[in-house]
Amino acid sequence: MNNKVTPKILPGFMELLPDEQILFNKIKDTIREVYESFGFLPLDTATIEYSEVLLAKAGGETEKQIYHFNKGDNDLSLRFDLTVPLARYVAQHANDLVFPFKRYQISKVFRGERPQKGRFREFYQCDIDIIGNESLNLVYDAEMPAVIYNVFKKLEIGSFTIKLNNRKILNGFFEAIGLKEQTAEVLRIIDKIEKIGEENVKAELLKLGADSGAVDKIMDFVGTKGTNAEKLERLKNLGVESEKYNEGIEELEKVLSYIRMFGVEEEAFQIELTIARGLDYYTGTVYETVLNDYPSLGSVCSGGRYENLAEYYTKQKLPGVGVSIGLTRLFSQLRENKIIETGSKTLVKALVLPVDESCVEVSIKTAGLIRNKGVVSDVYYGGKGMKQKMKYANRCGIPYVVIIGENEVKEGVVALKNMNTGEQQTVSVKEAAGIIKGDK
Amino acid sequence: MNNKVTPKILPGFMELLPDEQILFNKIKDTIREVYESFGFLPLDTATIEYSEVLLAKAGGETEKQIYHFNKGDNDLSLRFDLTVPLARYVAQHANDLVFPFKRYQISKVFRGERPQKGRFREFYQCDIDIIGNESLNLVYDAEMPAVIYNVFKKLEIGSFTIKLNNRKILNGFFEAIGLKEQTAEVLRIIDKIEKIGEENVKAELLKLGADSGAVDKIMDFVGTKGTNAEKLERLKNLGVESEKYNEGIEELEKVLSYIRMFGVEEEAFQIELTIARGLDYYTGTVYETVLNDYPSLGSVCSGGRYENLAEYYTKQKLPGVGVSIGLTRLFSQLRENKIIETGSKTLVKALVLPVDESCVEVSIKTAGLIRNKGVVSDVYYGGKGMKQKMKYANRCGIPYVVIIGENEVKEGVVALKNMNTGEQQTVSVKEAAGIIKGDK
Repeated sequence: MNNKVTPKILPGFMELLPDEQILFNKIKDTIREVYESFGFLPLDTATIEYSEVLLAKAGGETEKQIYHFNKGDNDLSLRFDLTVPLARYVAQHANDLVFPFKRYQISKVFRGERPQKGRFREFYQCDIDIIGNESLNLVYDAEMPAVIYNVFKKLEIGSFTIKLNNRKILNGFFEAIGLKEQTAEVLRIIDKIEKIGEENVKAELLKLGADSGAVDKIMDFVGTKGTNAEKLERLKNLGVESEKYNEGIEELEKVLSYIRMFGVEEEAFQIELTIARGLDYYTGTVYETVLNDYPSLGSVCSGGRYENLAEYYTKQKLPGVGVSIGLTRLFSQLRENKIIETGSKTLVKALVLPVDESCVEVSIKTAGLIRNKGVVSDVYYGGKGMKQKMKYANRCGIPYVVIIGENEVKEGVVALKNMNTGEQQTVSVKEAAGIIKGDK
Repeated sequence: MNNKVTPKILPGFMELLPDEQILFNKIKDTIREVYESFGFLPLDTATIEYSEVLLAKAGGETEKQIYHFNKGDNDLSLRFDLTVPLARYVAQHANDLVFPFKRYQISKVFRGERPQKGRFREFYQCDIDIIGNESLNLVYDAEMPAVIYNVFKKLEIGSFTIKLNNRKILNGFFEAIGLKEQTAEVLRIIDKIEKIGEENVKAELLKLGADSGAVDKIMDFVGTKGTNAEKLERLKNLGVESEKYNEGIEELEKVLSYIRMFGVEEEAFQIELTIARGLDYYTGTVYETVLNDYPSLGSVCSGGRYENLAEYYTKQKLPGVGVSIGLTRLFSQLRENKIIETGSKTLVKALVLPVDESCVEVSIKTAGLIRNKGVVSDVYYGGKGMKQKMKYANRCGIPYVVIIGENEVKEGVVALKNMNTGEQQTVSVKEAAGIIKGDK
């Protein structure tokens, strides 16, 4: 074996060292825990699907990014999101599911983009969706922010704002001012307001073909500031003649009042009229979430309400609402901005150190007893002297070592050392487990 | 949208309905929990790798099964096991890892086999490995059975036996009787002893070219019965002239004594001389695990000790020991044989039912309070009357419903109904949470 293959992975694929992986999993577990606490059911769809099924709807950019291949006679693709597999799954198993169907899925998806900073080709999405049969109560539009709120509170990564809009407001508004076809362009121009200033935005809107009355209305619309209540009031008085617009406002108002019932703090959610999300897909409430101290990260959790989840697979009307956290990207951004810090390089809380070979048996048994008390425990057999053994414990960042020497074996006790304080005490195994467990 | 695409997935891919998925996840979580309790570190390698790297060692059957494709200029493959990615990862990051490196990985792997009963193209492997730098203490060979023992105890799927052998015993033995080259064939013949009987095995061995002395020795060897101690004794007295053979026996004896230190019951592990596992790979201790009441399932957890994990990637000598549970196959077998049964179709323990729209606010708040006590809680807004609402709760298999009507709102209490006993009582929200939490 002289010709070695260089061990490496593709750019755009995230692999972590143990301390990072422990941190990543902690975040992933927190998300799962909150999702489950709201009664979302776990789902774990196939990674590889028939291209015909997976790409029933896709096209353009998405299709180019797909990992697409043949195996035998089958034309296959890797999933590129978790929404299409959900649609396929629900259509396939509709008779076996109870609606509203609340599911979460935390899985990797694959997109063969050109790798660039912050973009991943393989990344975790953490999705929740609630799917109704024929109809879906508007309360669920408020449950999304409630879940997001609980997730980001638990993650303890600083203050955040869940921004809400309703596509009916946007659509109704642009229809009313005769710019329905230009909605996407108008939103793109508006989006630059902080960067290029109000006057330049106006100029661009005029260049797009909007008349000056429409431009004024747009500026009024996006200029709507204040509290959520003030914004709603102002929207109602903008003088937009559109049933759809009014319906959107009514929905948004109801959703806000439901959000409060879920116990979400008023500071944590905000009407934001420039949010549109995927233009063809969402039909009602839409969401984005920003970390207040790190606006440059963009939205860390987005989604919305859609009319019909699975129209490519079934005649059954399945309206839904959902949000997604792009966890791999979020994690990478949080680390880069030092918003989260890694801790230990190990899960071990108690490392048992046999002083010599004669103490191995008692050491293994001691580790077993501590483990049975719910404390992650391991034995280290290496290291020539105690100094080397301690060095190993330190290198791993293990908080407690349990030393077993001849005396300890004889007396049926252990020497417990707190690696942070340096304090050492002789205690029973049971006491040791209690002390380690109590120290969180 | 008139032309619907039929929603379906490929054969050989396992997707579960919610009740099955809940059960599957419970098993997966138990395995993870035990792995972590022994201090194994989580690892989550890339699903897609460079073919050149992933297939550095592969060949023959394995190579044919690989999902292999090009994207841009890259020749890519999906991982087909978790061992090759581990080897690549350890070689790549050796300088950043602390040895012995104990890692677990619970991930899907992909093999494009022809689908057949019990064979999956996409399946979970739950691997643990301990990798040493240059050398690795023999105690770790005993830690594997200790971990397996704790996993299968916790899974509560009946009694099981961890079967152990040592490749040095096998190799030494076959070298000594001059049948080294035919080891694989001899083992295959021996394996049929229960099916075809001792005489036919002898005949086949003779046909293979073994002389009658060798055949007698083989029959003696595989006929070694009794307790572990008796087997060891008999092996020592077989009169095999081989240093390797004796080394293997010595190792096996030591490993057994370490296993006992780990608190594994004597009935749960057994020397089994016919176990060989992958002939090119394992070099010392090898393991298989069978469920005693379901021997037809074959080995549900296998592995062994290997000399050098990453020789294709690095000059560093990295000996290791590991085992793997093929979870998807195991789950499917356990379900088929009705060894495990699904329970609830939901994670929800408390379903709050607002009697009418006026009770929605209190219902949402009540669910939040119960949720904050650590009980999975949800509100159901559907159903026209209480009967329909109850039907929904029953259909999901939810153990408790919390009814909020006009009276309850007024009095600040809830009507808590145990769906199993039918018992209903009026209590405070806090009491309700306590009752539900206490009932496990």
